[in-house]
Amino acid sequence: MKDGEAFLNRSAQQVVDGMIAEAGRLGIGHSRGSLGEHLIDAGAQSPGSLEAGLRMVDICMGGLGIASVSLDRHSSRRPLSIEVRSSQPILACLASQYAGWQLTHEKYFAMGSGPVRTLARVEPLFEEIRYREPGAESSVVVLETATPPPAAIVEKVAKAAGLTPDRLTFVYAPTQSIAGCVQIVGRVLEVALHKAHDLKFPLDAIVDGIGKAPIPAPHPDFLKAMGRTNDAIIYGGLVQLFVRGSAAAARDLAEHLTSEGSRDYGQPFSEIFRKFNGDFYAIDPHLFSPAEVIVTAIETGETFRAGKTNIDMLEQSLG
Amino acid sequence: MKDGEAFLNRSAQQVVDGMIAEAGRLGIGHSRGSLGEHLIDAGAQSPGSLEAGLRMVDICMGGLGIASVSLDRHSSRRPLSIEVRSSQPILACLASQYAGWQLTHEKYFAMGSGPVRTLARVEPLFEEIRYREPGAESSVVVLETATPPPAAIVEKVAKAAGLTPDRLTFVYAPTQSIAGCVQIVGRVLEVALHKAHDLKFPLDAIVDGIGKAPIPAPHPDFLKAMGRTNDAIIYGGLVQLFVRGSAAAARDLAEHLTSEGSRDYGQPFSEIFRKFNGDFYAIDPHLFSPAEVIVTAIETGETFRAGKTNIDMLEQSLG
Amino acid sequence: MKDGEAFLNRSAQQVVDGMIAEAGRLGIGHSRGSLGEHLIDAGAQSPGSLEAGLRMVDICMGGLGIASVSLDRHSSRRPLSIEVRSSQPILACLASQYAGWQLTHEKYFAMGSGPVRTLARVEPLFEEIRYREPGAESSVVVLETATPPPAAIVEKVAKAAGLTPDRLTFVYAPTQSIAGCVQIVGRVLEVALHKAHDLKFPLDAIVDGIGKAPIPAPHPDFLKAMGRTNDAIIYGGLVQLFVRGSAAAARDLAEHLTSEGSRDYGQPFSEIFRKFNGDFYAIDPHLFSPAEVIVTAIETGETFRAGKTNIDMLEQSLG
Repeated sequence: MKDGEAFLNRSAQQVVDGMIAEAGRLGIGHSRGSLGEHLIDAGAQSPGSLEAGLRMVDICMGGLGIASVSLDRHSSRRPLSIEVRSSQPILACLASQYAGWQLTHEKYFAMGSGPVRTLARVEPLFEEIRYREPGAESSVVVLETATPPPAAIVEKVAKAAGLTPDRLTFVYAPTQSIAGCVQIVGRVLEVALHKAHDLKFPLDAIVDGIGKAPIPAPHPDFLKAMGRTNDAIIYGGLVQLFVRGSAAAARDLAEHLTSEGSRDYGQPFSEIFRKFNGDFYAIDPHLFSPAEVIVTAIETGETFRAGKTNIDMLEQSLG
Repeated sequence: MKDGEAFLNRSAQQVVDGMIAEAGRLGIGHSRGSLGEHLIDAGAQSPGSLEAGLRMVDICMGGLGIASVSLDRHSSRRPLSIEVRSSQPILACLASQYAGWQLTHEKYFAMGSGPVRTLARVEPLFEEIRYREPGAESSVVVLETATPPPAAIVEKVAKAAGLTPDRLTFVYAPTQSIAGCVQIVGRVLEVALHKAHDLKFPLDAIVDGIGKAPIPAPHPDFLKAMGRTNDAIIYGGLVQLFVRGSAAAARDLAEHLTSEGSRDYGQPFSEIFRKFNGDFYAIDPHLFSPAEVIVTAIETGETFRAGKTNIDMLEQSLG
Repeated sequence: MKDGEAFLNRSAQQVVDGMIAEAGRLGIGHSRGSLGEHLIDAGAQSPGSLEAGLRMVDICMGGLGIASVSLDRHSSRRPLSIEVRSSQPILACLASQYAGWQLTHEKYFAMGSGPVRTLARVEPLFEEIRYREPGAESSVVVLETATPPPAAIVEKVAKAAGLTPDRLTFVYAPTQSIAGCVQIVGRVLEVALHKAHDLKFPLDAIVDGIGKAPIPAPHPDFLKAMGRTNDAIIYGGLVQLFVRGSAAAARDLAEHLTSEGSRDYGQPFSEIFRKFNGDFYAIDPHLFSPAEVIVTAIETGETFRAGKTNIDMLEQSLG
């Protein structure tokens, strides 16, 4: 990817334009905020939809991902699945999709994701990801929340991104909505890449990736809804990565990448969360990864597999 | 959806334009009728194709559906499947796709479907579906027949739709053709919604839907062909609906929505049809529904499942 | 298909234009050769990607194919699969995709595929395939190699195609690359059609087709890489064809079309190749076909099935 193209932000803007044009079809609402920012409600006051969730995944991945929804009869109790892939997985998932930008103001709290992060670059991750989009003329922020951002947050984002507020779109949907579920579970590949990074696997050795996970029913209780979206990945996610480097490194990655090896594996996420009194950061970060992983070492031709779907946990959590 | 956009008719026209531009690729024929109406033969004198059938589904759903064909290895004897979904299922399936408009003139008989129905509004269903497309500048009619409509039918449709005949396109394919099979089995979601309506489930509580069914081989005998397309849904269809309202209402819907509970369940459709001496309306209307149903109550987070694929019946009917 | 439209070459050019515009996303390189020809490196010096491989399939099939990559959980050890279909299978696969044009000059050797073959028409197959594209203004050649073609080959192709070298694009990727694997296994339907032709089944009786095969990991050793791509089809491919004509002819086609009946069936391809001392033409040509075949006789309504996936061979060869 060349820095000057602004591919991620430009692609995300195209998806936003399409969402606004098809707002009725997607069950979403479009309005302008007090600073001229665009607001897209994909599941708070507006009902949203599966398709709205997919478009949020497209935005999150900066146009570098290909996402689809399908019925997988092999998973007979929970056939509804999302599949995502990217041939630029680091940019799509880590530079853009990862919900790594804490946006807080007074009581407002939301994690920001999407290609705006490549402009703001406020997270330590961007010390390693050198890709930049200096020419971006607009940007998009995805928020997992039911509440549009207050003016102070809009100003903060605009300043960090180097854009005026009217060039920003905030797309938001709560965890309890259909679109929210879809866009979160659409992070199945991102979660694997983020853990690979935690495991010190060199990011530039990951050349392609694809992932799949069941789409849970949204739940009106925030903790249950959050639990389900996490469990869909932790106990039901499948990811295949294509990596450069030695077979030993690929085997090592596969063996450590699944959720199975985590200290906290084996309970529905909402119970783990309760056990730690709601302290998200007390949970083993290595829990956040797919149930099943396939790592292919393209320079040696070997493939390593680890983990498996945990039907019992899916049954307990997703219903 | 806003009434003024004419989304369904406009989208269907775009699909028609694409079909005409790619007529060779799709194996279809395009001509003009005596009143200037456009005629697309997708399986009568022209061979048609799987892809032509998919385009007919796109037209039927007024651009509000997403349809695809795939090989599902889980269904090892009959992997070829169609999958359809819509985040505006009532408009896509009931306002447009449902073949509810009887078009008869002398010996000519065909059921009309597609977005023209939202303009004509001659069926009782439109007392409940208030969505209108007053600005539509053209429209499309899908007919399950081998014969293009006579001038009297074209005039009747034009008058009811408030358009001149040259603004109408009739796309037709018989049940015995590949495209015919695809477009009929592509009604797997519509059939579920229509039965939900019969069961008095409130239409505006259904917010999203997805369905899948095997695509049977076309059969040269009309009764066998019709039997197969019905059986593909009745004994092999799977639908998931996302609904608002109580868990009890969602459970009730799931329990009554499958074909299994119908009085006439358990024989290939062509035999049932013969048993009733070809009187379509003597058959239990509740037979027309998918074999397997998943209903998710988005306001309570519960999911209810009922029914299952009937392999024996698929084997007997689809071969 | 009408001859004058140049559908195949025009469509392939559109895919090339898209690849060049998204070179960064696809991990490919674009340059111009000494005669002005366009060169796209999709897996030699450039890393390439799954998506680049899919675009190569789109080019190979002259825009008449629909190809996708997905994770099929039913194939639990090797879920990553490619699926291709075409409603103009003879033109897509035999007139265009088949790698039938030997391009040799001194030590350079590569098999050419893609819509350029419909212009050059140097193979005997074109005595039977009468479709022509006289109006083509540019063309595309796909090469399974790590080396761009020498000027002598470019000139030869330009002359045979009746185009100046600057109107030609050569897209190349070695068998050992991700894109190479994808584009070769994307021939699962083509292989079935080519064998049907060998079996003297009338080409114009084949009206639609769809195929699926696992995507193997690329292997750095050419023989192993070639072995895997062949084995993915021979031991893991599934194809369904829709044919005109008698049920007996369809049954006969199904029974003879699978790899199972071949004299050389039952060993990994690389071992067979070694057994014949690397003499490709000593191998039974009937080995090159899918493991599992479904043939539907659309004029009689019957469906015939033969063969099955050979998990042991996939395990031995693909790892």
